[in-house]
Amino acid sequence: MSPAATSPPVACTVCGARYEHERLVVSCICGGLLELAPPAPLTSEHVDTLETGPWRYAAALPRVPAAGRVRLGEARTPLVPVRIDGADALLKAEYALPTGSYKDRGSAVVVSLLHHVGVTEVMDDSSGNAGASLAAYAAAAGMRCVVYVPASNSSGKLAQIRGYGAELRPIGGDRAAAMRDAAAADGAPFYASHNRMPAFIAGVSTLGFELWEDLGHAAPAVVVVPAGHGSLVLALAHAFRALRSGGSIDRLPRLIAVQAQTRSALSAAWSSGRDEVTALDHGPTIAEGVAAVRPLYGGQLLRAIRESHGDVLTVTEHEIAAALRDLGRLGHYVEPTSAVAVAGFRRLAGSNTATNDTVVVLTGSGLKSAWPDAEMGEMFSG
Amino acid sequence: MSPAATSPPVACTVCGARYEHERLVVSCICGGLLELAPPAPLTSEHVDTLETGPWRYAAALPRVPAAGRVRLGEARTPLVPVRIDGADALLKAEYALPTGSYKDRGSAVVVSLLHHVGVTEVMDDSSGNAGASLAAYAAAAGMRCVVYVPASNSSGKLAQIRGYGAELRPIGGDRAAAMRDAAAADGAPFYASHNRMPAFIAGVSTLGFELWEDLGHAAPAVVVVPAGHGSLVLALAHAFRALRSGGSIDRLPRLIAVQAQTRSALSAAWSSGRDEVTALDHGPTIAEGVAAVRPLYGGQLLRAIRESHGDVLTVTEHEIAAALRDLGRLGHYVEPTSAVAVAGFRRLAGSNTATNDTVVVLTGSGLKSAWPDAEMGEMFSG
Repeated sequence: MSPAATSPPVACTVCGARYEHERLVVSCICGGLLELAPPAPLTSEHVDTLETGPWRYAAALPRVPAAGRVRLGEARTPLVPVRIDGADALLKAEYALPTGSYKDRGSAVVVSLLHHVGVTEVMDDSSGNAGASLAAYAAAAGMRCVVYVPASNSSGKLAQIRGYGAELRPIGGDRAAAMRDAAAADGAPFYASHNRMPAFIAGVSTLGFELWEDLGHAAPAVVVVPAGHGSLVLALAHAFRALRSGGSIDRLPRLIAVQAQTRSALSAAWSSGRDEVTALDHGPTIAEGVAAVRPLYGGQLLRAIRESHGDVLTVTEHEIAAALRDLGRLGHYVEPTSAVAVAGFRRLAGSNTATNDTVVVLTGSGLKSAWPDAEMGEMFSG
Repeated sequence: MSPAATSPPVACTVCGARYEHERLVVSCICGGLLELAPPAPLTSEHVDTLETGPWRYAAALPRVPAAGRVRLGEARTPLVPVRIDGADALLKAEYALPTGSYKDRGSAVVVSLLHHVGVTEVMDDSSGNAGASLAAYAAAAGMRCVVYVPASNSSGKLAQIRGYGAELRPIGGDRAAAMRDAAAADGAPFYASHNRMPAFIAGVSTLGFELWEDLGHAAPAVVVVPAGHGSLVLALAHAFRALRSGGSIDRLPRLIAVQAQTRSALSAAWSSGRDEVTALDHGPTIAEGVAAVRPLYGGQLLRAIRESHGDVLTVTEHEIAAALRDLGRLGHYVEPTSAVAVAGFRRLAGSNTATNDTVVVLTGSGLKSAWPDAEMGEMFSG
């Protein structure tokens, strides 16, 4: 069983002020973005082996009593060995989570925390997956839920959000417009921003702990993930730091963040050795989940990747489509965002920097994408 | 670890002739349908505790060496307690399987068996879920796959089948026409009929074994499932017989088969005490998975339900839509076929025959349905 929780508090990225998760602030009093404070060490003794899903690592999460945790039956996600272009990869199938996306790890924790402190109405802005995930957990908690989405997004995701009984607010304009409108909304409901609440990142960090358990209490050599605002990168960095400081692993896995070439702000900053990330927009991408023009936590991302001796790669729309098709032909039907990571893995494999314990995270289900038939026909032909 | 396999062979439902699974016949030489022969006893000692997914119960499955098993990373599916209309239910979330449907249990076993004996091309007819599942496992095995589908089916499912690289053959006309066309196709590929290969039912029977493990090596009191051709009913009956004959459980769970009122051939036979089922078609249903006009294994279904002291219920389209909406509002986004079972549970709960270890099987993901917006708006309003 897990010892007393040692949940890390929240720290301002600008002035360093600290808050408890229960304060539910989405930005510092100075206006700065919040991040998770450095994690407490995590060892096997902190794992609650009677639990599956995020609460198995409750010791590293905001404190919510067991009876107050909102659950949809989160199983441990599969880790599937495959060969891609003659190189070995371990696919972490996050699409097997309840709403079909890794975001469930974060939503489970955020909604449990909000429910625990008495919040009854929540809202978020989302390109789709985070909105569906928040809607599902809010439904399970009996909360009202409002989701701001770009009206142009995949109809499959919008249908799913409505299916959970949430109120959809389609916004003309892009993802950033949806975020502005959500942030500017008056009064209730509470803005449960998956991009701004560190409790969300804490939930997603359970992916790192789970990988460590999947591999027999060892770290993978390399983890390849798609990067939009970078929640996966930050969450994995947090988890592996906690494991290393507990002596549970002896080195940090190399974190490889993969971007679409059309939305490669992080890559541009990385290549030129900068410490901050500025906006960059070279056009649209079929990978909705990495369509961020400017990653919110750019500086933190760069530092986390550097600390891990990782890298930032970009892939073309053509490479994303090819990876999507080839993944399907391995039996994994994923959304284009997941294919971004696989396309990145191919780059690594081509340069012989992939190893046989390289993990590639498949972030979401292909069932959500619902491409127009013509577009899909083109993508899957040849 | 599991002892030597005691896989039951296949028996003809008409003349009783027996075949080994490896013979790969889809009907008896006399023309009769094949079924699984009575199962060998199953106890805890037969469970391969190092495995998850169907092969955890390899002792009860066709013999395929571990190295030849085709895997997509099948996790144990969640069993989630909920309250519906004031009654307790345990939702078995089969939508968490790799392709989003319980059919993966059967496809994993069928494709492994076919792969093991050297088959390289397969085909099936399907309303969608079985086709997607076969396509995924065939892809993982490197097999060519052809799927005959009614052209009018959910576009989400058709996109998924194509996503796995399978060749779609859309058939004008209904589900039965797709089946006739598939059966009449010349030569290769092999007709890997999920409705006719007992190895498919053997795979699905692992749901019963898993429920028994989920409940701490006990049988649930009642299991509620949607019934089309009845593969779930037959598979659960098979599993629970194996567990009872091994002394692993002391009574058979009551099997409650739920049909759409418009496709209630089984119910009509049940109510009038007949031993066989004749065709019945009172119009369409939104629940594609239970749209069978005449269950292929009608007599077997009736006997299995009777032996379990179970029941057959029918539910209206309105009840299905209401259950679908209410399930979403509990955080479970499922296809209408799953809602059929929940609507059936409500009938039980209303008659006080549900107990607090009543399992309701959620067969497939709502992400596959992709209802037209207008229809969906209507379904989810109010």
